[in-house]
Amino acid sequence: MPEHPKLVSTAKSHGGAQHVYSHLSTSCSCEMTFAIFVPPQARESRCPVVWYLSGLSCTHANVMEKGEYRRIAAELGLIVVCPDTSPRGADIPDEKDNWQFGSGAGFYLDATQEPYAKNYRMYSYIVEELPAVIGREFPADMARQSIFGHSMGGHGALTIALNNPARFRSCSAFAPIVQPSTAGWSKPAFEKYLGLDEASWRRYDATSLIEDGHRFPEFLVDHGTSDGFLQEGLRPWLLEDACSKAGIPLKLRMQDEYDHSYFFISTFMHDHMTWHAERLSRG
Amino acid sequence: MPEHPKLVSTAKSHGGAQHVYSHLSTSCSCEMTFAIFVPPQARESRCPVVWYLSGLSCTHANVMEKGEYRRIAAELGLIVVCPDTSPRGADIPDEKDNWQFGSGAGFYLDATQEPYAKNYRMYSYIVEELPAVIGREFPADMARQSIFGHSMGGHGALTIALNNPARFRSCSAFAPIVQPSTAGWSKPAFEKYLGLDEASWRRYDATSLIEDGHRFPEFLVDHGTSDGFLQEGLRPWLLEDACSKAGIPLKLRMQDEYDHSYFFISTFMHDHMTWHAERLSRG
Repeated sequence: MPEHPKLVSTAKSHGGAQHVYSHLSTSCSCEMTFAIFVPPQARESRCPVVWYLSGLSCTHANVMEKGEYRRIAAELGLIVVCPDTSPRGADIPDEKDNWQFGSGAGFYLDATQEPYAKNYRMYSYIVEELPAVIGREFPADMARQSIFGHSMGGHGALTIALNNPARFRSCSAFAPIVQPSTAGWSKPAFEKYLGLDEASWRRYDATSLIEDGHRFPEFLVDHGTSDGFLQEGLRPWLLEDACSKAGIPLKLRMQDEYDHSYFFISTFMHDHMTWHAERLSRG
Repeated sequence: MPEHPKLVSTAKSHGGAQHVYSHLSTSCSCEMTFAIFVPPQARESRCPVVWYLSGLSCTHANVMEKGEYRRIAAELGLIVVCPDTSPRGADIPDEKDNWQFGSGAGFYLDATQEPYAKNYRMYSYIVEELPAVIGREFPADMARQSIFGHSMGGHGALTIALNNPARFRSCSAFAPIVQPSTAGWSKPAFEKYLGLDEASWRRYDATSLIEDGHRFPEFLVDHGTSDGFLQEGLRPWLLEDACSKAGIPLKLRMQDEYDHSYFFISTFMHDHMTWHAERLSRG
């Protein structure tokens, strides 16, 4: 029998509860922490699950504190799960001075290269292990799931949705890295986690997945026009081009003067949650 | 001519802008930092000002990040000013290991005792100096102001409103310290800032001010029933008793299972902002 996750903290919020749990992850071979908001409706029946994947340097806590998702989640009856962004701990290989690799920079992939292959398995953690925990331990309707995220977590949401289209009713992103295999801030991490054979990178790159025939019904993506990472790191036109060629409807919104911060995320959180809820409530 | 405050950071949010500024405070004889949200309506005309005073150990940043006031402030057209809670800096007398005194614990009073009297003048800073800056530098309608706060900042809001009833259209509080002159976590600070003559403490104590004849039209106060500071530090029944004797309408709400955290504050932020906006829009 798997152990129950350990409650780290809990606080009533908007009639529901914002919990933080930790558990021993078999995927990552370390203790992992996640935040989960359970709305008041979960006292009556199982609620749909929205996954929020965070960006570089974040933990579960950043969006929990600054994302402003609880008011609308409580209104719509949505469970919101906010995982950490990498394995962590004294025994985990890391590059302490590099915010684009190691702790806080798991890139939602399964590393194949040493010394990272044992711990940096965030793809399996998010796609297999943590959903099993959520379905077993919380009042979650696992037949109704959506996924979104920010920056590196937007990359995670897009690639996980494209790899698992039957699981998610909807996918959206704030300022996603749409082609991490060529962006300067992510390519070095792909090399170290996955090795130099770029063919192995394609399943973790949204534009490559689409080129290779993966499909998802539609995407909602917001970018800020004052986002300092727009031109070099995020490059939304690459997703626009891939979706256009593949016939995937992309609602891409360039939001005037917004930056890359949680002030941007929290501004459009309401829109994204509502968009997911509409799709989660269908049939 | 006074210098303009220096812009520390700015980010577009909910159509308006969340700014952080610093300026040399003459009241506190040090550089002071404040956050100000300017809603989109301020492009067209001056907007009412809501003052939010934070609690022990906080800076301007805690409520800016976790308070979730911007969505509703942008909807209602309210400027929200979030000052720091004390003077700060290498030259400021402090007790580094004491979160209930010194940095982060200014208690919104003007200290009279050495070595604190030069810097710990948060009452004058909030009541005189910072309003002059806001009125001069921002599109603020200073004829329409309201004030609220949390814990020590709830104490600040209540005492500043009672001392300046003509200035504020409304006053509310989350989990305020209503009788700091007798609470264990604040009485030692009063002694050090103000000296042992307890008569000098009364103008900084909400229940004493009401006993001494100060009046305000009404108060809205929320407390969480799971707030660990309720019985010893906050003691809402003391305000209830004082208001009852003085005939001040007090809407005191004991919120089931909520604690003292920003999860509590952000849950009821919408209510408080709406309550202030209703009163700011009258005549």
